[in-house]
Amino acid sequence: MQQRVYNFSAGPAVLPEEVIKEAQENLFVLPGVGMSILEISHRSKTFDKIINETRADLKSLLSINDNYDILFLQGGASLQFSMVPLNLMPPKNKADYIITGSWSKKALKEAKRVCAINIVATTESENFSRIPKQEELKLDPDASYVHFTSNNTIYGTEWHKEPETGNVPLVCDASSDILSKKIDANKYGVIYAGAQKNMGPAGTTVVIIRKDLLERCSDSLHSMLNYKIHSENGSLYNTPSAFGIYIIGLVSKWLIKNGGLDTMYKVNKEKADILYKCFDGSNEFFKGHAVPDSRSIMNVTFRLPSEELEKKLIAETTAAGFDGLKGHRSVGGLRASIYNAFPKKGVVELVDFLKTFQSKNS
Amino acid sequence: MQQRVYNFSAGPAVLPEEVIKEAQENLFVLPGVGMSILEISHRSKTFDKIINETRADLKSLLSINDNYDILFLQGGASLQFSMVPLNLMPPKNKADYIITGSWSKKALKEAKRVCAINIVATTESENFSRIPKQEELKLDPDASYVHFTSNNTIYGTEWHKEPETGNVPLVCDASSDILSKKIDANKYGVIYAGAQKNMGPAGTTVVIIRKDLLERCSDSLHSMLNYKIHSENGSLYNTPSAFGIYIIGLVSKWLIKNGGLDTMYKVNKEKADILYKCFDGSNEFFKGHAVPDSRSIMNVTFRLPSEELEKKLIAETTAAGFDGLKGHRSVGGLRASIYNAFPKKGVVELVDFLKTFQSKNS
Repeated sequence: MQQRVYNFSAGPAVLPEEVIKEAQENLFVLPGVGMSILEISHRSKTFDKIINETRADLKSLLSINDNYDILFLQGGASLQFSMVPLNLMPPKNKADYIITGSWSKKALKEAKRVCAINIVATTESENFSRIPKQEELKLDPDASYVHFTSNNTIYGTEWHKEPETGNVPLVCDASSDILSKKIDANKYGVIYAGAQKNMGPAGTTVVIIRKDLLERCSDSLHSMLNYKIHSENGSLYNTPSAFGIYIIGLVSKWLIKNGGLDTMYKVNKEKADILYKCFDGSNEFFKGHAVPDSRSIMNVTFRLPSEELEKKLIAETTAAGFDGLKGHRSVGGLRASIYNAFPKKGVVELVDFLKTFQSKNS
Repeated sequence: MQQRVYNFSAGPAVLPEEVIKEAQENLFVLPGVGMSILEISHRSKTFDKIINETRADLKSLLSINDNYDILFLQGGASLQFSMVPLNLMPPKNKADYIITGSWSKKALKEAKRVCAINIVATTESENFSRIPKQEELKLDPDASYVHFTSNNTIYGTEWHKEPETGNVPLVCDASSDILSKKIDANKYGVIYAGAQKNMGPAGTTVVIIRKDLLERCSDSLHSMLNYKIHSENGSLYNTPSAFGIYIIGLVSKWLIKNGGLDTMYKVNKEKADILYKCFDGSNEFFKGHAVPDSRSIMNVTFRLPSEELEKKLIAETTAAGFDGLKGHRSVGGLRASIYNAFPKKGVVELVDFLKTFQSKNS
C-alpha cells in the first residue's frame, strides 16, 4: 500500500478513506450480486436499492421534505448553468443573478442565451474578495428565480446565510459546499452541485428541486435537458452514472455515521479557523484573499509578500506531501481546499509547516 | 472473493476481469500519485497522461486519422440524440434518419425538435427484425447528415456494412457495437457511443467527430452542448468523468494486448455463431428474432414455443448463474448480450444448458 498525500485540490478532491476502501474491497464483486458495480444493470433490484437509499440518505442529511425531489444527472454544474434557465425561466422570462466569482459568471453566460438577466449585485470590482450584503441586492420581485453561488472555489468566499428573496425561488450552485453544513432547504427552489468536491467522483450532478417548479418545464425541451422527465423517471430516463451514485451513497452513509452535518460543520469550521488564525497572527506574512466576514470554510485562499516566496512555498509544500496548494491564477498565491473528507491532522501539519516557513523566510 | 456470475446484461454490461482487478488494486492509491483516481485533479499531469493515452489508444484501435477528434462527454447516447442535430443541422436544416429500433426512434424524437427530418427507411412494420438494404434507403443528397444505429440492442439486429451516403456525412450511434470489430472510420462524420457496453462504466460518452464538421457548431449553442467547445478544450471544458475515462483507457489497453479489433471480431463472431447454430439446429424450439442476414453478434434475441417455457427457462438459467437473459418487452423471450468482455466459455455453457432444457421440455 503506497502512502497517500494530503490532497488540497479544489476538485476533484479528497474522499473519505473508509469510503474508498469499501469501494475497493467490493469493486470486483458487489457482495451477493456476482458482478461489479461497474457492470450492474441500472434496472436491477440491487441498483434500485442503491439509488433509493442514496436519495433517502441525502434527504435525511439535508432535512429535505417530500416537497422536493433529488435527481442524479450528468454534465456537472456546467450543464446546470443551461438547464436552470431552460427549465425555470418560462413564467416571467427574466431572472436575477448574483455574481460572486468565475462560476457565477459562467452560469450568467449560459442564462443570457435563454432570456433577459438582471445582475442583482457583483463584487467583481473588488476581485470577488467578498459576498454582497442583503441590502446591496437589487432584487426584482417579478423575476423567475434568483441564482447565486454559495461558495466560490476560486476566490475562497462563502455565503454564511443565504440571500432573502421573498417569494422568488432561490436557485443555488452549491457544488463546493454542499453537505459541509446544515442549510434550511425550504428556503431554496433548486440546489445543484457537481459531486466532485464533497460527495463523490466527478461525473455525477445532484439536483434538488422543489416539485412545484417541475410544472415550469416545457415539453418542448430536449428530453435530457428536462427536469420533469428525469423526475418522472426517478433519474433513470437513461442509464445514469451508476458508480458515481454508488459512491455518493457510501459518502452519505459515512456522513450519517460521523454525526451528520452539524458535526461536519463543527469540524470544517475548526479546520478553517486553524488556517485563518495562522494568517491573522502572521503580521501579514500570510494574507487571506477573502475579507473576514466572507471567508470560506472550504477553500482558504492566501498570498505571501512576494510571488517568489509563493513559488518557493508551493515547491516546498509539494515536496513535503501537501499536494494541490497552488492557487488559481485569478487570485494567485495559494489555496488550501479542505472539504469534508480532508483530515484535521493535515491542516495542523500544514500550519506547522507554514509557521516554520515564515520564520525561515522573513 | 465471491464467485462472479455470467452477466448477459444488455448494458451496463460485463467488463474484462483483468481491467476490474487492475482498477481495484489501484483504487486507494494510483501508483506514484498518492491519491485515488476518484480524487485526482483533471488538470493534473497524471490525468493529462490518462486522457491522452486513452484517446490515442482508441484512435489506434479504430484506425482513426488526425482528421478526427475524440471527445469524452457525459449524458450518454441520449444527450447525443440532441447534440447531433443541434450541432450538425445548420447547413441545410434537414437530415435523414434510418429507423431500425427503439433507440433510432428516440434519436429521431429529439432531432425533430431541431428541424425537418426525412425518414429514409424503417423496418418497424416487421417489428425491427431486419436491417434495411441499401436500395431501400430513400436518401436526400441534400441532407445535413444521415443518422443510423449500427446495432439494435433490443431487437438483436446489426448493420454488417454501413449505409452508403455519398457526400452526406454519416452519423452513427454505435453504443452497442463500438470496438467489437474494425470499421472504416473514414466513412463516418460522427460516431458516438455510451461507454457502458464495450468500453467502460456508465457515465461517459465517446464522440468521434470529423474535424471539418466542427465548423458547423454555432456559437449560440449552450457551451456544454457545443462539440467545438469540447474539442477546443481537449474534453476538459469542465470536469470530465475522470474515472470512466480511466477505465476506458484500461479497456483499450486490454483490447490492444489481446490482438485488437480483428481478433475481437473473430471471437465475437464465434461466440454469436455458437448460439445461432444452436437455434438453427433446434427444429424451431429456439427461434431467433432477427432475420439471418441482420443478426447481431452483440445481442442475440430469441423466443421459445410459449411464454411459459420462456419464463421457466429464464428462472432456470438465473438459478444456474446465467444472469440477465430476460428479453426486452418489445421482443419478449430471451436476449443474450455477449459483448467483447463476455467469455466464450459462458456461451458454450449456456448452449449446453439450452440443449438440455430443450430435450427435457419438448
